[in-house]
Amino acid sequence: MGMTITEKILARHAGLEKTQPGELISARVDVVLGNDITAPVAIKEFEKLGVEKVFDPERVVLVPDHFVPNKDIQSAEQAKMLREFARKQGIVNYFEVGRMGIEHCLLPEQGLVLPGDVIIGADSHTCTYGAVGAFATGVGSTDMAAAMATGETWFKVPETIKFVFNGQLQPWVGGKDLILHAIGDIGVDGARYMAMEFTGEAIDNLSMEGRMTMANMAIEAGGKNGIIPPDDKTVDYVKRRAKRDYELYQSDPDAAYARVIEYDISALEPVVAFPHLPENTRPISKVGDVKIDQVIIGSCTNGRLEDLRQAAKLLKGKKVHRDIRVIVIPGTQEIYRQAMAEGLIDTFIQANAAVSTPTCGPCLGGYMGILAKGERALATTNRNFVGRMGHPESEVYLSGPAVAAASAVCGYIAAPEEVL
Amino acid sequence: MGMTITEKILARHAGLEKTQPGELISARVDVVLGNDITAPVAIKEFEKLGVEKVFDPERVVLVPDHFVPNKDIQSAEQAKMLREFARKQGIVNYFEVGRMGIEHCLLPEQGLVLPGDVIIGADSHTCTYGAVGAFATGVGSTDMAAAMATGETWFKVPETIKFVFNGQLQPWVGGKDLILHAIGDIGVDGARYMAMEFTGEAIDNLSMEGRMTMANMAIEAGGKNGIIPPDDKTVDYVKRRAKRDYELYQSDPDAAYARVIEYDISALEPVVAFPHLPENTRPISKVGDVKIDQVIIGSCTNGRLEDLRQAAKLLKGKKVHRDIRVIVIPGTQEIYRQAMAEGLIDTFIQANAAVSTPTCGPCLGGYMGILAKGERALATTNRNFVGRMGHPESEVYLSGPAVAAASAVCGYIAAPEEVL
Repeated sequence: MGMTITEKILARHAGLEKTQPGELISARVDVVLGNDITAPVAIKEFEKLGVEKVFDPERVVLVPDHFVPNKDIQSAEQAKMLREFARKQGIVNYFEVGRMGIEHCLLPEQGLVLPGDVIIGADSHTCTYGAVGAFATGVGSTDMAAAMATGETWFKVPETIKFVFNGQLQPWVGGKDLILHAIGDIGVDGARYMAMEFTGEAIDNLSMEGRMTMANMAIEAGGKNGIIPPDDKTVDYVKRRAKRDYELYQSDPDAAYARVIEYDISALEPVVAFPHLPENTRPISKVGDVKIDQVIIGSCTNGRLEDLRQAAKLLKGKKVHRDIRVIVIPGTQEIYRQAMAEGLIDTFIQANAAVSTPTCGPCLGGYMGILAKGERALATTNRNFVGRMGHPESEVYLSGPAVAAASAVCGYIAAPEEVL
Repeated sequence: MGMTITEKILARHAGLEKTQPGELISARVDVVLGNDITAPVAIKEFEKLGVEKVFDPERVVLVPDHFVPNKDIQSAEQAKMLREFARKQGIVNYFEVGRMGIEHCLLPEQGLVLPGDVIIGADSHTCTYGAVGAFATGVGSTDMAAAMATGETWFKVPETIKFVFNGQLQPWVGGKDLILHAIGDIGVDGARYMAMEFTGEAIDNLSMEGRMTMANMAIEAGGKNGIIPPDDKTVDYVKRRAKRDYELYQSDPDAAYARVIEYDISALEPVVAFPHLPENTRPISKVGDVKIDQVIIGSCTNGRLEDLRQAAKLLKGKKVHRDIRVIVIPGTQEIYRQAMAEGLIDTFIQANAAVSTPTCGPCLGGYMGILAKGERALATTNRNFVGRMGHPESEVYLSGPAVAAASAVCGYIAAPEEVL
């Protein structure tokens, strides 16, 4: 019997010929990632281990992105701890304020995560990197500490669910809609501790950015990892960025799957997730009248150039509704520059959107758009849990950038066609 | 005996032929200003007064700029209170997130503050508008509440100190250096409850932006107001923006001054104020070796286009020093757009600076660059009190944008010439 791409990558990193779901393995990791929230905890744990140096200063990546530029004294102290550790350890890939971006936008862009890698990060959405054909998963800060010391970590090899997305996407429907559709189908624990392998014609046709959006949200179905087997698009994306070798793995035709789920997405509309779980999905035509106060366009889920292009296309020459605050957050400085060069930033500002420096900010209730009691946001982010973006009695709805931009103009959750 | 410009404006607004220093008058106000920190307090007081409507919904200006886009739940609640009051009262000049900017950059730009006006604002730096030849001063939230109800307020007519700045400015020396020089001379209480009238060749030659920087910091010498008698530059600036009439007042040749202070500024170097008071000034050549961690370019003092142009001129083609975080904050959305069109924003991002949406943010320790214990910032802001930008054991140094930009490149407080 063959292996899935996830099993192959894990086997290779464990020095094994073969693995199978349920097996406990110790695997070499290619990248260990931490941010300004999680790394300080990991650093304290690392220092308790009595190890002098991290296993490889080129393989530990530290990105202050959650609460920087420092939102308060506490976040300033966290960022300082990260900075001092990075200097002391000679961390090559430490990204200071002004050089950085949202970690899960930044690492692929910088060619730091590559096909065939095993990547762990002390952040739930580390699974994003599955979009380049890597095994990538979120871990706790203690696991991050141990891996910084040893360059290895333990895994239980996950079973895999194979998702096959058949059909051609409708206009304004993208990766976010596909993944919300799947989460709406299987539920937020539908893939608990499993690999989610995304395949099919719709995935083939998706840009790398759309694929990252999908892999990013695997965790929202409980997945251990999301993964998209690499193709020409993947290679085209990574070959310009990679500074080290990488390997392209594919699932064997006779690989064993826990489940295979097929969707015909040819009639799929843009999807919106209602409070307070990403599984509470409705097609845009069934949303009804939902007035909103704020729109967030950005995050590790939808803060990439393609997302900004899509939003700008709908906002161009229009004004944000009088009662709406729109905050646009490019994922990285490079995305920001490119968006500026293409006139997208100018479109946003002319439309009366605030444009932020790259940050996770509002997504996790950090800063840059926190909600008051009773307020509602529509966001291109990944989680709409109770109080996620502010007050416990506020609400977050999730969508892709097209619905977000249309809703910004209308003042209620709206289909892109409403503003065309 | 004649009157000063300050006395004339106050007399006219009190319906009097003449006033003299020390007199208590009740004056009509042209504009009443509040922000997201001070207006909520004023709104509560206003509601206690039992008055239904503000005296004039076109003359009350509300600008959420301090902690927006909302930095936390509390600031979200404050912004919400402001918004709801603005809607209920039909406030014409309420500036929502995305349409706004730092109040003291925004109001002159929007033509809301005009020569001959009496303007009160529940913010210390309301004195900025003296740069257009208005009487403008900061008041408490209770005074703001009363003025929103009645359109009037009480003043004790201030004595005036006349400052005469003789000579031509050296390159890289601007309004910030002039005002820091004056504050360094007379001290932070040197003009307590007095009008500071700025005149002389150097003021004549200063741009409107440089004049706003100067009037902005009158409060840092304890001044009741700062004022620059209007000239052709003033008229040129306001006539394109004004939507109502205005009057140009000048001090009489025989006006009585409490003091006249003359400076020959032809050899003045860029000035830096050391912690923890704006009066602790040193010329750049006497600063010595001061390593810094962060540079802030922005604020109601130096967040205007000319300031960004000056900073960009020094940062163009260079990189921010490895150990420095630079945060650039355009004062308004219009300034942001113009800076983008001129390539300044691109210069900042290429230099590795973070570019923020317009906000007061770090200046008052709000967010967007708060300091950890022991950290030092050089900022183009107006106050360097203990803990102003974060931890009580952090330090803030003040300068103009040229020194700030040069220091960003060098990693220590540096003269502009060091990076040329």
